[in-house]
Amino acid sequence: MAVVIRHTRRTDLELVDQLAAFGVATIHEAQGRTGLFAARLRPIYRPVRVAGNALTCEVAPGDNWSIHVAVEMARPGDLLIVTPTSPSDDGYFGELLATSLRAHGVRGLVIDAGVRDVAELTDMNFPVWSKTINAQGTVKETPGNVQTPIVCAGAYVRPGDVVVADDDGVVVVPFENVATVLEASRAREANEEVKRARLRSGELGLDLYGMREKLAARGLTYRDASDA
Amino acid sequence: MAVVIRHTRRTDLELVDQLAAFGVATIHEAQGRTGLFAARLRPIYRPVRVAGNALTCEVAPGDNWSIHVAVEMARPGDLLIVTPTSPSDDGYFGELLATSLRAHGVRGLVIDAGVRDVAELTDMNFPVWSKTINAQGTVKETPGNVQTPIVCAGAYVRPGDVVVADDDGVVVVPFENVATVLEASRAREANEEVKRARLRSGELGLDLYGMREKLAARGLTYRDASDA
Amino acid sequence: MAVVIRHTRRTDLELVDQLAAFGVATIHEAQGRTGLFAARLRPIYRPVRVAGNALTCEVAPGDNWSIHVAVEMARPGDLLIVTPTSPSDDGYFGELLATSLRAHGVRGLVIDAGVRDVAELTDMNFPVWSKTINAQGTVKETPGNVQTPIVCAGAYVRPGDVVVADDDGVVVVPFENVATVLEASRAREANEEVKRARLRSGELGLDLYGMREKLAARGLTYRDASDA
Amino acid sequence: MAVVIRHTRRTDLELVDQLAAFGVATIHEAQGRTGLFAARLRPIYRPVRVAGNALTCEVAPGDNWSIHVAVEMARPGDLLIVTPTSPSDDGYFGELLATSLRAHGVRGLVIDAGVRDVAELTDMNFPVWSKTINAQGTVKETPGNVQTPIVCAGAYVRPGDVVVADDDGVVVVPFENVATVLEASRAREANEEVKRARLRSGELGLDLYGMREKLAARGLTYRDASDA
Amino acid sequence: MAVVIRHTRRTDLELVDQLAAFGVATIHEAQGRTGLFAARLRPIYRPVRVAGNALTCEVAPGDNWSIHVAVEMARPGDLLIVTPTSPSDDGYFGELLATSLRAHGVRGLVIDAGVRDVAELTDMNFPVWSKTINAQGTVKETPGNVQTPIVCAGAYVRPGDVVVADDDGVVVVPFENVATVLEASRAREANEEVKRARLRSGELGLDLYGMREKLAARGLTYRDASDA
Amino acid sequence: MAVVIRHTRRTDLELVDQLAAFGVATIHEAQGRTGLFAARLRPIYRPVRVAGNALTCEVAPGDNWSIHVAVEMARPGDLLIVTPTSPSDDGYFGELLATSLRAHGVRGLVIDAGVRDVAELTDMNFPVWSKTINAQGTVKETPGNVQTPIVCAGAYVRPGDVVVADDDGVVVVPFENVATVLEASRAREANEEVKRARLRSGELGLDLYGMREKLAARGLTYRDASDA
Repeated sequence: MAVVIRHTRRTDLELVDQLAAFGVATIHEAQGRTGLFAARLRPIYRPVRVAGNALTCEVAPGDNWSIHVAVEMARPGDLLIVTPTSPSDDGYFGELLATSLRAHGVRGLVIDAGVRDVAELTDMNFPVWSKTINAQGTVKETPGNVQTPIVCAGAYVRPGDVVVADDDGVVVVPFENVATVLEASRAREANEEVKRARLRSGELGLDLYGMREKLAARGLTYRDASDA
Repeated sequence: MAVVIRHTRRTDLELVDQLAAFGVATIHEAQGRTGLFAARLRPIYRPVRVAGNALTCEVAPGDNWSIHVAVEMARPGDLLIVTPTSPSDDGYFGELLATSLRAHGVRGLVIDAGVRDVAELTDMNFPVWSKTINAQGTVKETPGNVQTPIVCAGAYVRPGDVVVADDDGVVVVPFENVATVLEASRAREANEEVKRARLRSGELGLDLYGMREKLAARGLTYRDASDA
Repeated sequence: MAVVIRHTRRTDLELVDQLAAFGVATIHEAQGRTGLFAARLRPIYRPVRVAGNALTCEVAPGDNWSIHVAVEMARPGDLLIVTPTSPSDDGYFGELLATSLRAHGVRGLVIDAGVRDVAELTDMNFPVWSKTINAQGTVKETPGNVQTPIVCAGAYVRPGDVVVADDDGVVVVPFENVATVLEASRAREANEEVKRARLRSGELGLDLYGMREKLAARGLTYRDASDA
Repeated sequence: MAVVIRHTRRTDLELVDQLAAFGVATIHEAQGRTGLFAARLRPIYRPVRVAGNALTCEVAPGDNWSIHVAVEMARPGDLLIVTPTSPSDDGYFGELLATSLRAHGVRGLVIDAGVRDVAELTDMNFPVWSKTINAQGTVKETPGNVQTPIVCAGAYVRPGDVVVADDDGVVVVPFENVATVLEASRAREANEEVKRARLRSGELGLDLYGMREKLAARGLTYRDASDA
Repeated sequence: MAVVIRHTRRTDLELVDQLAAFGVATIHEAQGRTGLFAARLRPIYRPVRVAGNALTCEVAPGDNWSIHVAVEMARPGDLLIVTPTSPSDDGYFGELLATSLRAHGVRGLVIDAGVRDVAELTDMNFPVWSKTINAQGTVKETPGNVQTPIVCAGAYVRPGDVVVADDDGVVVVPFENVATVLEASRAREANEEVKRARLRSGELGLDLYGMREKLAARGLTYRDASDA
Repeated sequence: MAVVIRHTRRTDLELVDQLAAFGVATIHEAQGRTGLFAARLRPIYRPVRVAGNALTCEVAPGDNWSIHVAVEMARPGDLLIVTPTSPSDDGYFGELLATSLRAHGVRGLVIDAGVRDVAELTDMNFPVWSKTINAQGTVKETPGNVQTPIVCAGAYVRPGDVVVADDDGVVVVPFENVATVLEASRAREANEEVKRARLRSGELGLDLYGMREKLAARGLTYRDASDA
């Protein structure tokens, strides 16, 4: 009963690449702390950062057949997002699939499961975020949906949403919000530059952010060690 | 009641070293997806690959005494395989034991528990796969079996079986199967070289592997986004 | 109801720096296997080693407000030790706070929760031990205690205790024991140098440590493989 | 920036109650193995089964304020579905909130976090599925969204979708599919009754399901122990 | 180097028993959300509630020797609190030790490790809170400290502190705070009785607690589903 | 490439039933603390105890086909032991399979994965030990080995070994050791009856087991609280 959706929406790569200028933490804040994938997804090498159009793919447990189906749907600038239909640590993905994806312009992989051939993937500079690393391979018996909306590591992702991933994790930006989030990210980063300089000079956050009154109002008190 | 078995079987090192030419994922596939250790075992540094004759050792919880016993049983080309008799994250192994093992030709350690001195072990290029890293040391009060068949991280290992470990994990090849697995690994790798080239050129796995009919038979259907 | 204790005790930095000459595993052994933080705390980059006076800080779940309060209490040579009042994987700490702490002479962070901006923290060489890495930020609504005794990752830590952290983990040395532990660490390391040389030359631990009789008394027996 | 959506859709309670006649495993199968919440959600007492309209609620980490907001949106026959915006094991919910929800006709709680007062909740027969049990309470500082689409324990849930929960777990049925899933569940159960009788009489599944040929085609072979 | 401290302080049993009238959640709130043991400790049967003077005991990994030492230190009304010096899931405790403890008036066990004989312990109505259940036994080779301050499941506990445990978890009340916490618990419970009645009658928490203005100030907004 | 071994060895049911008179903890001790399954396997209801001949079965991830194959190999008095070839939490087993197994005299199930229909299994008094409970079903595409030696939850099990399971966990007794283990279990239990009576009368384990001298030799010292 699996289905592949063709001709799905994609976000303009110019916008995608502008988002990639910002880190995941910044983008996550800039869109109101939404869209973060669970922290169990970690990059197989660091440092790394990538952004791309979500190419979504469901896989059956221990079965990577639909990843092969997804390759045909790939467009340059895509980032493959894979979620198993029940939790699995198997190694669904390795060097051959990465070679194939790269040939079609796919920029990397985010998978809520395991991958293998990580030495080769690192040599290829093919970025991967995964739940684990595992030599255990998979079968090809049960196809899964490709380019449908999915939940991956707790995040709701639709084809053509933008996914950004770096050393801190993975975040999805819904396609309708990309312009707004870009603007908010720029504003946030400009603001941080000012703060960074003042903090570097030794100014306290308590003063920079004007926190002292609010802290007192919340009942924070100071005592000397000798009072104890 | 612990026992040490002397004069156990070993696989010819020439065969062992030929196995080391292949990665864990390849060998695991080549022997029908058997023999993999649980994915919780991870190398303390990467990239790394080693193969050796299994030198097996059981340890009591929080007690590394039998590792000292195992050193005397070591032969050049061995890989020490350690399993606690109940789950433990303690640091059973550090730089001194590695120094001793290396003096006796042991090529590395696989342990379903913790290790320490990982900075020093990395400097020594002494490869270790472990469940965790932990400064917590152990006592020497209860000896365990050495060179008996063991279960380590879910894998059944006998002395003289060949263990191969790399960035992807750890796999055991039963001694009676080494020649067969070598041959299957070679065949598999040759076959992969061909596939790699075709995938790199952009050919789809769907075509390369002839999957389209089988996928249709399993009910995979294609729809356009505009149909939704 | 949160409180900040001012003018807390600190250990002389000369002693702190002498402790930093020893690894966590050595210090842990030298003080009778006490004071270790849980192994779930891992450094964000390796190799790394640091020692400092504990600057303690409790944070509410998903709330990093009191870290800002803690900065004002910092003195050069401090190491910030943060514990949430209930378990959390959120990213309480990033590059801006690190910039501020460094401006006040703080040497690093130990936190039983998550951090973010790990690429930037690594570039800054700002050492961090954390439970996880997570882009998920925090709010500033509920202050927590600063410079009170805390339990962090299972270790009981008071302001001015010395905390040492390296690739193997994190350990606390109570301020009243620093001199004793220093001496015991030195003795231990001198003793290890001798052992290392003898083990490197191939001498067995069984002989070096005189274990054979004790092992026999505990019932260890040897059998030949052909006896089986 | 939190929002509450009023006057959301609800599924007719007659349909909801018909769904409750089937267990979670049956419904999950009947809708093509979709919609299952992660298995970490467990009932606080067994046996138990309930179905209701999803009343959705996001909570900040360690903060249950929006549950109070959700009560006002409740309608008889609702089931409260709560998800934290980052993972938490805190006890967001206890006897007082259950008393309030029951007064408004809410049938139970599904929460991807902790609850407390489980002895009292059990006495009240107020069904709860949670990730953990924890006496740790929460603050009321940061409101979250109420009656918006959410991801809870990996399942995508919209207000007015039907959620069914029993000893086996929790499943969501999208409102547009309720009639279809009901029909498929009935068909499935009728079919199982026939199978159950035949299996009880000793007929083998191999024969009942006609598996022997397909197994042989997949390479299953039989050998006698004496052949080994 | 283990030590046993004799003649440690105890809290008056009349006060201890008054504390037992309140649940763990209430006491935890009444003392400012401090003193809670980690939620991984769960009772082996439910419902259950007990309070007692902490009789503290450290055990080596996989070694329960010091529990035997602790029995001699027991006084009627004690609750045995056991923590391993490194994490362990072994079964340190069973029916024989429970029989011995009961003969000396000990009311139950809290242990951050495993127990066994849980069918027999349940038949005896001997309450136990543990991290796991495990038939794996322990040795008697390394004594640990008895009646010293310990950290158990993240809580700092001294001999003679009062520990209360029920279906929700385990909490420690420092001996110097017992009277204050008793009073605060009574006040809290009286206050809850009033709230319970009003909530049962259908009054909203939003009104009962006067939350509407504060929620609006924090930016909570209401929209109709038709606005979306 | 899966294989089914017919006509495998079985242990005499009279011996099996005698073993069932002893709990898992007793048997585990009686055979030198070997053969225990990992503690993650828990019974779906308590109290419970069962013993049977191991009927072994491997399953592919998310695929329960070989369980159907195993039913045909079942003999009265068997206990089905199922292990997935890679870790899985799926619900491989439910009421229909239990009905079929019971019709063939199988006494229960031990599975290192998930099960479903636990309300129905409990009503049937069909005992199950599993890693989790999960409504997520499985496919029937890849057969696994039946009646071959397997590793299940860390234990090495061969067809016809005896497996005993109760509230404390699961243990395997190798068929060649059954008589010896029976005798040792009887001796152990007789000995415990004597100890139980003496401990119940208030005699200290320190005296009963003659531990005082050995403890002093290991450096245990006593101090009065006033000495601190």
